[in-house]
Amino acid sequence: MKTALFLPLILLFSVSALAQQRPPAISSPDVHTDNRVTFRYFSRQAQKVTLNGEFLSSPLPLTKDTSGIWSITVGPITPDIYPYSFQVDGVDVADPNNTYIFANERFKRSIVDIPGNTPLVHSLQNVPHGKIHYQYYKSATLGTTRTLLVYTPPGFNPNGKTNYPVLYLIHGGSDTEETWTKVGRANFIADNLIAEKKAVPMIIVMPYGNVRPSPMPDFTKDMTQDIIPFIEANYPVFKDSNHRAVAGFSVGGGQTLNIGFTNTDKFGYICSYAPYTATEEFTKNFTDWKPNADLINKQVKLFTISVGTEDFLYESVKQNIAMFKEKKIKVEPLIVPGGHTWMNCKLFLAKSLQQVFK
Amino acid sequence: MKTALFLPLILLFSVSALAQQRPPAISSPDVHTDNRVTFRYFSRQAQKVTLNGEFLSSPLPLTKDTSGIWSITVGPITPDIYPYSFQVDGVDVADPNNTYIFANERFKRSIVDIPGNTPLVHSLQNVPHGKIHYQYYKSATLGTTRTLLVYTPPGFNPNGKTNYPVLYLIHGGSDTEETWTKVGRANFIADNLIAEKKAVPMIIVMPYGNVRPSPMPDFTKDMTQDIIPFIEANYPVFKDSNHRAVAGFSVGGGQTLNIGFTNTDKFGYICSYAPYTATEEFTKNFTDWKPNADLINKQVKLFTISVGTEDFLYESVKQNIAMFKEKKIKVEPLIVPGGHTWMNCKLFLAKSLQQVFK
Repeated sequence: MKTALFLPLILLFSVSALAQQRPPAISSPDVHTDNRVTFRYFSRQAQKVTLNGEFLSSPLPLTKDTSGIWSITVGPITPDIYPYSFQVDGVDVADPNNTYIFANERFKRSIVDIPGNTPLVHSLQNVPHGKIHYQYYKSATLGTTRTLLVYTPPGFNPNGKTNYPVLYLIHGGSDTEETWTKVGRANFIADNLIAEKKAVPMIIVMPYGNVRPSPMPDFTKDMTQDIIPFIEANYPVFKDSNHRAVAGFSVGGGQTLNIGFTNTDKFGYICSYAPYTATEEFTKNFTDWKPNADLINKQVKLFTISVGTEDFLYESVKQNIAMFKEKKIKVEPLIVPGGHTWMNCKLFLAKSLQQVFK
Repeated sequence: MKTALFLPLILLFSVSALAQQRPPAISSPDVHTDNRVTFRYFSRQAQKVTLNGEFLSSPLPLTKDTSGIWSITVGPITPDIYPYSFQVDGVDVADPNNTYIFANERFKRSIVDIPGNTPLVHSLQNVPHGKIHYQYYKSATLGTTRTLLVYTPPGFNPNGKTNYPVLYLIHGGSDTEETWTKVGRANFIADNLIAEKKAVPMIIVMPYGNVRPSPMPDFTKDMTQDIIPFIEANYPVFKDSNHRAVAGFSVGGGQTLNIGFTNTDKFGYICSYAPYTATEEFTKNFTDWKPNADLINKQVKLFTISVGTEDFLYESVKQNIAMFKEKKIKVEPLIVPGGHTWMNCKLFLAKSLQQVFK
């Protein structure tokens, strides 16, 4: 029979053709049940391969087997999601075999999820899941169409009678609009806290915060004149400051302070994570600032600044906190161990989600 | 004034601290108005940096300036979206300065979008935009919770009286559920064709098709027993075969043939792009296949197989087409120039979207 005869030929042809195109399939990272992790990289010709990871204090060398597969097993590592990369003969590379990439404009790192035995606040758990909408909006401020991500909670009904409060959540400098979901797992954190009734159902809007050359003033305008009106025109949301929060990390934490405190009539909740404030706009807004503290403390129901004690911005953030206190603005500091990391971002967000809109 | 004095100190501290953490900001790729493109890579220590791209027939060397920035300007290049990567002293890397990554499990490549002067079918145009929903569904077949992406067309109302037809669209082997949107721009192609009334408003479901170790039989079951019921329970869609299509590329093109022709009562449209068919399931399903061609040709309103003449699977795909013809199954071949590429995938999808549900 003709068909039966030619099919094995197709098989031979295609497999070898596919095999030529691609490096061998290897598994990396392999997360073991004891929280150790094996990382692998394939190269016959490389002389030296090292592993960098935010779970390590310094890089570690991989060793090569006879087939050209380099590997190392490390840990046990405290369960969390960590960025890592390889350095191959001096060249930094993301793990070619790992789909999970740190969404960023200046580097390519992979992320590894070590779940542990007890579900973490950012874990995929057996609870109802919200959705993430990838949306396009026109920014009159920036003269372009930009992407934003919108988390809608489980049970969300765009045409129902329920209005939702909104958290505007900004990534760090050189991150993208995807970093809060891809690395920060904002959607799972919200799913889990809503399921536990520790957070109220809310919409979380994750815009793209990088505006060049000057990130700050234009993004404040984009937020108040383009993003918020777009969301309020397209989602069933409350439109008053008691149901509107802004939060952000690093450069996004600085943007949070600028956006929030130049619009205290619009944001009842301001949550700044490890803010980077060495910007002209921060200087302009806060150097000779003479706030009406009584009014602001009434308008802003919650103002938090969160930072890790090993964060390279720790001293700067302490000065920010002192400045707000000196101006009699009520501020709730959250000081935790750890550095300028997305491990801490997830904790900060989980804390904020339990505080806002209550 | 105390505040005015300490702010400049913060400025100095933070800028230098940030600068230490990161490589210099360089712009890459820079797409020029004449369709030439400049690619840049920073390394003081690298000895050799080359550019690989699907717009090139062979790699080209970059040259280094005194500041350690390697660059090359190529083209003009025919407007399209192309994968590319650098090779740095023998190590393949994605462009560290380019956010747009080819969503894939086995390699990390960047993508460059050369828009040209005339909007292409995949370009972001000034038309109403649909949304992409990132969703989670429980697969009883696979015993896990998996992601899928759902494109909903402009004006989509989840609670309205309108039901939509559904295209199930499968990526290639080692791609991910994001490849059809991130690389294939399926959402923009649909937006543009719907705006021109060349395609009917439809829902496009993009699941994750990789099932290991055996991709085929389990994914067919996942599709018919988990994914389709999930979509039909959660979206306002028609549930008959006249309003259900399946399409896919490469391994996904093989999955399309397996899913479609073992379920001709369920899929009125079967569109296979450069199918990879060297699989046990294909052999099992089609070697001694004695189809009721009359019945199938009534059930399946459209069956297309698309491939490029430079595709490494071209001979195999021609044999597939011959096999279906020999079995008297009506098949519409689409043979175009080009290889096993996502440039061709976009064309194939654009063609299918204009054919289905009509």
